[in-house]
Amino acid sequence: MSSDYQAIDRVKSSGRIGRDIDTLAGPDYTRSPTAICRYAYTEEYRNTLDYVSAELRALGFDVAEDPVGNLVARNRREGEKVFGIGSHCDSNRNGGKYDGTMGVVTALEVCRLNHELDLGLPLQLISFLEEESSGFGEPLLGSRIMAQRVTDEHLREGVRAIDDGRPFWEHATEAGYEPERWRESIHVLDDLVGWIEMHIEQGRVLQDAGERLGVVTAIVGLLWADIEVFGRSDHAGGTPMDLRQDAGAVAAECVLELERLARAAGPGTVGTAGECEYEPGLKNVIPGHVRLGLDIRSVDAESYHGVAREIGEFARSAAARRGMRAEFVERSDTPPTTMNESVVDALAQAAEESGERFRLMPSGAGHDTQLVASLVPSAMVFVPCKDGISHDPSEEARPEDGALAAEMMVNAIRELV
Amino acid sequence: MSSDYQAIDRVKSSGRIGRDIDTLAGPDYTRSPTAICRYAYTEEYRNTLDYVSAELRALGFDVAEDPVGNLVARNRREGEKVFGIGSHCDSNRNGGKYDGTMGVVTALEVCRLNHELDLGLPLQLISFLEEESSGFGEPLLGSRIMAQRVTDEHLREGVRAIDDGRPFWEHATEAGYEPERWRESIHVLDDLVGWIEMHIEQGRVLQDAGERLGVVTAIVGLLWADIEVFGRSDHAGGTPMDLRQDAGAVAAECVLELERLARAAGPGTVGTAGECEYEPGLKNVIPGHVRLGLDIRSVDAESYHGVAREIGEFARSAAARRGMRAEFVERSDTPPTTMNESVVDALAQAAEESGERFRLMPSGAGHDTQLVASLVPSAMVFVPCKDGISHDPSEEARPEDGALAAEMMVNAIRELV
Repeated sequence: MSSDYQAIDRVKSSGRIGRDIDTLAGPDYTRSPTAICRYAYTEEYRNTLDYVSAELRALGFDVAEDPVGNLVARNRREGEKVFGIGSHCDSNRNGGKYDGTMGVVTALEVCRLNHELDLGLPLQLISFLEEESSGFGEPLLGSRIMAQRVTDEHLREGVRAIDDGRPFWEHATEAGYEPERWRESIHVLDDLVGWIEMHIEQGRVLQDAGERLGVVTAIVGLLWADIEVFGRSDHAGGTPMDLRQDAGAVAAECVLELERLARAAGPGTVGTAGECEYEPGLKNVIPGHVRLGLDIRSVDAESYHGVAREIGEFARSAAARRGMRAEFVERSDTPPTTMNESVVDALAQAAEESGERFRLMPSGAGHDTQLVASLVPSAMVFVPCKDGISHDPSEEARPEDGALAAEMMVNAIRELV
Repeated sequence: MSSDYQAIDRVKSSGRIGRDIDTLAGPDYTRSPTAICRYAYTEEYRNTLDYVSAELRALGFDVAEDPVGNLVARNRREGEKVFGIGSHCDSNRNGGKYDGTMGVVTALEVCRLNHELDLGLPLQLISFLEEESSGFGEPLLGSRIMAQRVTDEHLREGVRAIDDGRPFWEHATEAGYEPERWRESIHVLDDLVGWIEMHIEQGRVLQDAGERLGVVTAIVGLLWADIEVFGRSDHAGGTPMDLRQDAGAVAAECVLELERLARAAGPGTVGTAGECEYEPGLKNVIPGHVRLGLDIRSVDAESYHGVAREIGEFARSAAARRGMRAEFVERSDTPPTTMNESVVDALAQAAEESGERFRLMPSGAGHDTQLVASLVPSAMVFVPCKDGISHDPSEEARPEDGALAAEMMVNAIRELV
């Protein structure tokens, strides 16, 4: 441990983080009796922001919200340089207590430590709106608005509430925001000299390796696509095997080929067929139409683009071999984001000095940080989550790992500001 | 053509069959504006029985319904021998005009011809209740009740309406029937010396061969089963390929193996995976659980039982190879039913004499006749349907083929009574 390493009382921090997480899992903060369910412009989401805001005000922070509802709190005046920390505190609809929220309350703990230990760090906490897409069906919505990765037209008409189909624009206005000023959100980032988001890993790599911390070096690029196979819905009993056009058989070949291609691309690249819809989907009818929903990722853009290209070609030729037709339709393509070397180094140095086991690793999931990183030197910290489970009420992570992450963030930020 | 072959005016018969089919496709006879949708104890089903009943009464038939609602009409007194003809006039929920209904109105046309040509045939028409399972989720319900292939307990509690979940028993009682007397239904068959059902083929064999008639020699045995694969729902981004337990990959292997096994079993055996359900079914989550619904059939019991046994073993070992678990659960097994040789011969003889192209063939679909056949010498006649499509509003068959079938039935029955 270097002489100026700032140790903290991890037990105390762990207690505060655990208390915050449990508080925000209470009935005032979730719309579901059996899961965490909160999303933009609901009472439960409002209560969550109010809780975090009150805690920050008690530490002397100025708390505000940008024109669409991203929460921004800082302990320096506008125009003065600050270091950004935070995550999101919305959840998916059947979510757990940790995804997003643990990152926000760990950032809050960094603010508490700064106050308590009188570290004098200039900080800005951000809690992003609608990371999970559970209110309006669009992931990373708050950070995409902030990074100007949306269009006015799409925000006014295209983004619609899952619950009632009405535009985001109307909901935001009714909640007291000014969506017509969304372009001003970018100024939230104006004074940031750096950004660190803590998040649960959403994988089992750290757990299986017995490590307590991950320093993220890159967020994977992610391509979503559909394969649609067009066969013929004949009667299962009346149609001999050699007269069939079974779309399910082509889809099955594609599932196995995607797995083969992703393995062949090597570690760091993954390919998943997570959706498979048969039509008509009856035991006694040959599937006439199958849609496979694919997710292909890598930190290496060439690698995942290659897998996508090859599975598309395979689908078309596998269908043609059986007298059918298949289409490969790309739905979205988000390029990989490399984390900032200085921020990564500062985190890795702090992790090293903490004496705990950690690793440098890619993030296989998307995060608000990939939007922030386009404008601010950024990195992320992962803590293990039990069995890699996230987006589920059974999600579990350890407050003591949050405390360790807070200690690492404090030390990294001290180096960086 | 032998000297005593009874020719008919096929154009006239075709006109009447076409008119009946079109009438029963009208708004009073279907619950859907875009399809035929009628099932037990609905107003539209009642209207359908009333139409058929009125037509039969006009021909001098006594019309009655058994204790659960199977329609029975005869032109001889109880105790006198009669020859049975008919089918069902319920439909699946998104059905066409022909499946079942064409068989009933062709049987009605046989009754008309008997009257018009003064043939003196002793006839009994049956229209079975709930062949399609669209009211209560149980296929062949009316004929299974008649053949005593149900239990009292199951009928009272187990069979429930798809619409409201209430028991069949209650619905039948409210409709004016006496389900507690269901065992008496078997007496409908007491006086039958034989049975012929006409039905659309529900396959494309006749169409593709350019044949107008099929004489059914056997109804296939049918096994329904589920394969359930238990993997692990990990995050698609956070889980490297070599840490996965992807239930979708095992299911894909099973789909292809089922196809291989059914082909290897030779013509007459088919295997279909018509249902495939991924859980959770999200692009960014590895499927942790997949259920495949299988349909395996053959006229040869050993053959389809062999395919079922082998795919079950394959599923278990394919899952085990990937560190997962799979279960093969048999849901139902209906043995094959051989048609009565004398009835088949009489039909084939009549078809021969009609001068039209026909074939002897198995039925790949199940029919009420397989229940009747356990108690009465039975066979079936198929007519082509366009592109093999059934159970869909686009279902099509030709009334002139119905007229030809009626002519063949008239001649066969003349031989058999």
